Amino acid sequence: MTRFKLIVEFDGRPFMGWQRQTHGPSVQQAIEEAVTIVTGESQAVHAAGRTDAGVHATAMAAHVEIEKPITPFRLMEALNARMRPNPVAILACEVVPEDWHARFSCIGRRYIYRIAERRAPLVLEAGKAWRIAPPLDADAMHEAAQRLVGLHDFTTFRSVHCQSDSPVKTLDRLDVRRVAGGIEVEAAARSFLHHQVRSMVGCLALVGQGKWSANDVSAALDAKDRAELGLNAPPDGLYFVEAVYPD
Amino acid sequence: MTRFKLIVEFDGRPFMGWQRQTHGPSVQQAIEEAVTIVTGESQAVHAAGRTDAGVHATAMAAHVEIEKPITPFRLMEALNARMRPNPVAILACEVVPEDWHARFSCIGRRYIYRIAERRAPLVLEAGKAWRIAPPLDADAMHEAAQRLVGLHDFTTFRSVHCQSDSPVKTLDRLDVRRVAGGIEVEAAARSFLHHQVRSMVGCLALVGQGKWSANDVSAALDAKDRAELGLNAPPDGLYFVEAVYPD
Repeated sequence: MTRFKLIVEFDGRPFMGWQRQTHGPSVQQAIEEAVTIVTGESQAVHAAGRTDAGVHATAMAAHVEIEKPITPFRLMEALNARMRPNPVAILACEVVPEDWHARFSCIGRRYIYRIAERRAPLVLEAGKAWRIAPPLDADAMHEAAQRLVGLHDFTTFRSVHCQSDSPVKTLDRLDVRRVAGGIEVEAAARSFLHHQVRSMVGCLALVGQGKWSANDVSAALDAKDRAELGLNAPPDGLYFVEAVYPD
Repeated sequence: MTRFKLIVEFDGRPFMGWQRQTHGPSVQQAIEEAVTIVTGESQAVHAAGRTDAGVHATAMAAHVEIEKPITPFRLMEALNARMRPNPVAILACEVVPEDWHARFSCIGRRYIYRIAERRAPLVLEAGKAWRIAPPLDADAMHEAAQRLVGLHDFTTFRSVHCQSDSPVKTLDRLDVRRVAGGIEVEAAARSFLHHQVRSMVGCLALVGQGKWSANDVSAALDAKDRAELGLNAPPDGLYFVEAVYPD
């Protein structure tokens, strides 16, 4: 058995999310089925993070074990050739040690959330960003975001379906910046709670619109109550962009 | 009658191109039908440029005359509300003089062509860029591009279906630069021949791959013969990004 690390890009729109579901297609299933076509083997594919329906990835890390002798390059090319029509691509593939695990070895995760600031419906970016009518105050959003950085009980920013043992997490970075056409929010942490990034972005959007202040964000955090969440941002704008591993 | 200038974004994939066709959907038809729904009028919509099937626009300029009294803001909002499911959006709308013409008043046109430099099939950018496997030499492409700038007979870089009176055009700018994930080619001129940008980009890609030299580009230009074209780039990567008007 050889263990391969995969870097995976996917368009989340047609999927129920990363994880295999009985009620619809998933990214995991798409890759596992391609693995079966290529190798004849039924192997589980494990990812650094389990994204929700409609959430995208530019570089999700995953791993799979294969019995058949095959080089990383050939495996990557063969999987990509068999992936259609699923919007999933393997961008990189390498052999990793048998104790390397995409999820459990991961020491950092990074997401980007894209907001398109415009009145008109999204066309070229349909399903790929959250459209909010201008004006948005990016500086106020960034300032309010800093209230969330650090070690906190993120109960307010956690889905009721979250399976994490504890709502206490350390948020390493939450940066808001202007980019062409809108605003980009970058979030980095060792790990995130279910819906945490979308929940934080939803509240920051309220700040950008002038409906909430930075103090309202602090109050929502301090409440440790999901009912105090201002707004949960849609999945469209969310991208898993990096999984960090030791060395 | 009031004449309105429209700035239009569209995803070119489902369309036969800008211009109305009997054999399939067009951007022009999509907008004209929305105008009819909103105003009850059958009005022709004129654009600065007639893009091909699969070619996109971030900011095509167009105009339409409306009899019904309506403000530019209301017209824009109403057209956007009636455009679905067509991937077309009106980004801006203003009243212009009766002698202002999106095509004939236009004194400059600008296109961007996006090349994704990677082996894996495109997923998040499927249909939105031309995928070419690395490595591409962007500096060599830019240098070769300068052979095409200026006043030339562009017969080699012109579709056999081109309806322009003359193949002689002045190319103001053809810049090749590295961007995240690949290469961007920017072309600016008063006007372009049919397929001119795609034909130029196709040959520059050959230069980037090391298959052609800058001298080969010059030789193709000097030949004034469509058969000497190295390669016509696919429509996927092409975006109409600006129409320039006096003052």
